[in-house]
Amino acid sequence: MYNFIYHTPTRVYFGKDEEKKIGLILKEYNPKKVLIHYGQSSVIKSGLLERVKKYLEEENIPFVLLGGVKPNPTLEMVRKGIEIGKKENVDFVLAIGGGSVIDSAKDIANGLANPNDDVWDFSLGKKKPAHTTKKGCILTISAAGSEMSNSCVITNEETHEKRGYNSDFNRLDFAIMNPELTYTVSKYQTACGAVDIQMHTIERFFCKGGDTYLTDEIALAIIKSTKKAGIDSYNNPYDYAARSNMMWASSLAHNGLTQCGREFVMCVHQLEHELSGMYENIAHGAGLAALFPSYARYVYKANIERWTKFAKYLFGTEDILKAISMQEEFYKSIGMPTSLIELGVKEEDLEKLAYNASRGKTRILDGYMKLGYEEMLDIYKMAYKN
Amino acid sequence: MYNFIYHTPTRVYFGKDEEKKIGLILKEYNPKKVLIHYGQSSVIKSGLLERVKKYLEEENIPFVLLGGVKPNPTLEMVRKGIEIGKKENVDFVLAIGGGSVIDSAKDIANGLANPNDDVWDFSLGKKKPAHTTKKGCILTISAAGSEMSNSCVITNEETHEKRGYNSDFNRLDFAIMNPELTYTVSKYQTACGAVDIQMHTIERFFCKGGDTYLTDEIALAIIKSTKKAGIDSYNNPYDYAARSNMMWASSLAHNGLTQCGREFVMCVHQLEHELSGMYENIAHGAGLAALFPSYARYVYKANIERWTKFAKYLFGTEDILKAISMQEEFYKSIGMPTSLIELGVKEEDLEKLAYNASRGKTRILDGYMKLGYEEMLDIYKMAYKN
Repeated sequence: MYNFIYHTPTRVYFGKDEEKKIGLILKEYNPKKVLIHYGQSSVIKSGLLERVKKYLEEENIPFVLLGGVKPNPTLEMVRKGIEIGKKENVDFVLAIGGGSVIDSAKDIANGLANPNDDVWDFSLGKKKPAHTTKKGCILTISAAGSEMSNSCVITNEETHEKRGYNSDFNRLDFAIMNPELTYTVSKYQTACGAVDIQMHTIERFFCKGGDTYLTDEIALAIIKSTKKAGIDSYNNPYDYAARSNMMWASSLAHNGLTQCGREFVMCVHQLEHELSGMYENIAHGAGLAALFPSYARYVYKANIERWTKFAKYLFGTEDILKAISMQEEFYKSIGMPTSLIELGVKEEDLEKLAYNASRGKTRILDGYMKLGYEEMLDIYKMAYKN
Repeated sequence: MYNFIYHTPTRVYFGKDEEKKIGLILKEYNPKKVLIHYGQSSVIKSGLLERVKKYLEEENIPFVLLGGVKPNPTLEMVRKGIEIGKKENVDFVLAIGGGSVIDSAKDIANGLANPNDDVWDFSLGKKKPAHTTKKGCILTISAAGSEMSNSCVITNEETHEKRGYNSDFNRLDFAIMNPELTYTVSKYQTACGAVDIQMHTIERFFCKGGDTYLTDEIALAIIKSTKKAGIDSYNNPYDYAARSNMMWASSLAHNGLTQCGREFVMCVHQLEHELSGMYENIAHGAGLAALFPSYARYVYKANIERWTKFAKYLFGTEDILKAISMQEEFYKSIGMPTSLIELGVKEEDLEKLAYNASRGKTRILDGYMKLGYEEMLDIYKMAYKN
């Protein structure tokens, strides 16, 4: 077991009606002005945004609004948020939405607190934030796990680059999680969420390390429960048990719990980021589902023991290839793609994807099997038609 | 799934040599004076106390010492700590030890920050702390889970009362956990620790609630891993894998993770607190082992479904009574008692134990089966000779 630091300070308010407390919760931080950050039409249509405004007004908390965050949140929106935040003296950023809105809010919060830095340098790893602004969220979709994670993924539309960075300053102060708010999430997005949650834990499970049987058992428990919750949520969007287990899984899968004592490299995520960075219509979860089976078949021989453990616990078989096929069947059963062609990826883009994922043939993803440009290209090619 | 709040802000530094960072870690809090709080001879014999003093001196951090905390930490020691802390202007309390030292440190920290309150009123539930003092620990034994928990258990030796209270102010700012520091823990104390860690999770698993399959799977994962880690640590004290999994389990078992979405009443703990409150030579873990099998046989019919899940996952059987016997065998295999008589409890004290545990026949522990004075007495009697 490797040494590790575990720090998940985000206070979680979980369950029905919890968002009604937002005014009182915010009051504890005594904010001068809150930036309410949100996405496109759904929080307006559902009436949630109006409700939140009312809760804040009831506690006399001043706020300013910034909506319009798209999936794969953009640097452009972050810059806009920082500009408004500076002008309005914002000292608290409240995200209402899912991973995209939360990541955008995190970057805005870091930008506001580090006015002399360019936030894109954080994404590129050229600089690290040294401060942050207080921030919280009301979560409306179970997927990215950003509500408890230390990560933040932003897309630079000018350069077609999607880049993530990890920092303790990316941890929210609080996250309000009412599973009922996810009842209206579409079947497709629900499925994408289940894939993403599972993948956050699967990737950690397959990182290098040893003697972490407690972490392993917890990881497998999360992967297994997410499958059940994902299928049940997909088939019955108003199933509270399913929605609540899935929502809590989204946080635990990505808050660091399942990597304690192991290394941390997210290979499939890195391959996928290039995909949805290049094709803005590709949903992250769908991209992961399209890549994982091919990735799995490509790398499993590098650690037979671990893949056997995975196959046995989750699928009751020691046949790894069979288990990968069964995972594929799970994806199909919730309407997820298992090849790139289904997502409209063009064959002529595969080399460019591998080139970008390998940072111009300079980066190697160091898992049980090392993945450089050539290996990445192999996997993209395998996944193309699969 | 019930609504819940989850908040585990304690920053964990886990692994070999992590205690060497203590000076640098403390420096972040810029303390005026640190109270170093510890137990009896072991941290002196092992040289750990001298090392910690040196690490603090290297960073020019002033400190004052208070040792001598015994198992079942006393109110008297807490009062002494508060007195010294006030006199010396202590603004950080550092515990070096296990649950007893940490609990004593928590209570001192709360006492210092609430100078107009009597700390014993916190234990009695008459008052709640409104502030606290910064605090951290270097953990030297895997057992109580106090390093990440919100609980604090103190014994009033004058009245023979052992009382716990939960508060967010009982959360440490950081916990340094080096499994190698537990190599010298005796076989007996190692076994007691394994019992306590398991019991923290077992009790939560059997609290009222439904539809928490994610929490349940995680709980079972912790119970299972603790058994392996406990047996391995008992048989080979220098097994790093065992010591590290056990240490991490101690934190996860009691930080709130395994109660998310369920009620929280710790029946066996409540019955045990009276035991080690009355007999100061009884180790908490041994008391739990002596009580649990009888408790289990007494209550299991109130929730056959849940006990079957427990039996199946952990012992591969649907026969609950068989599973309880197997749990008993596990206790015996690591030298733990399974009856009160083995612990030297006197038969004539059983009624007094039940009287105290039921707070003079006024308190009912509200689990799947309600336990009042009569039921508690039945369980103590069953456990007496078992």
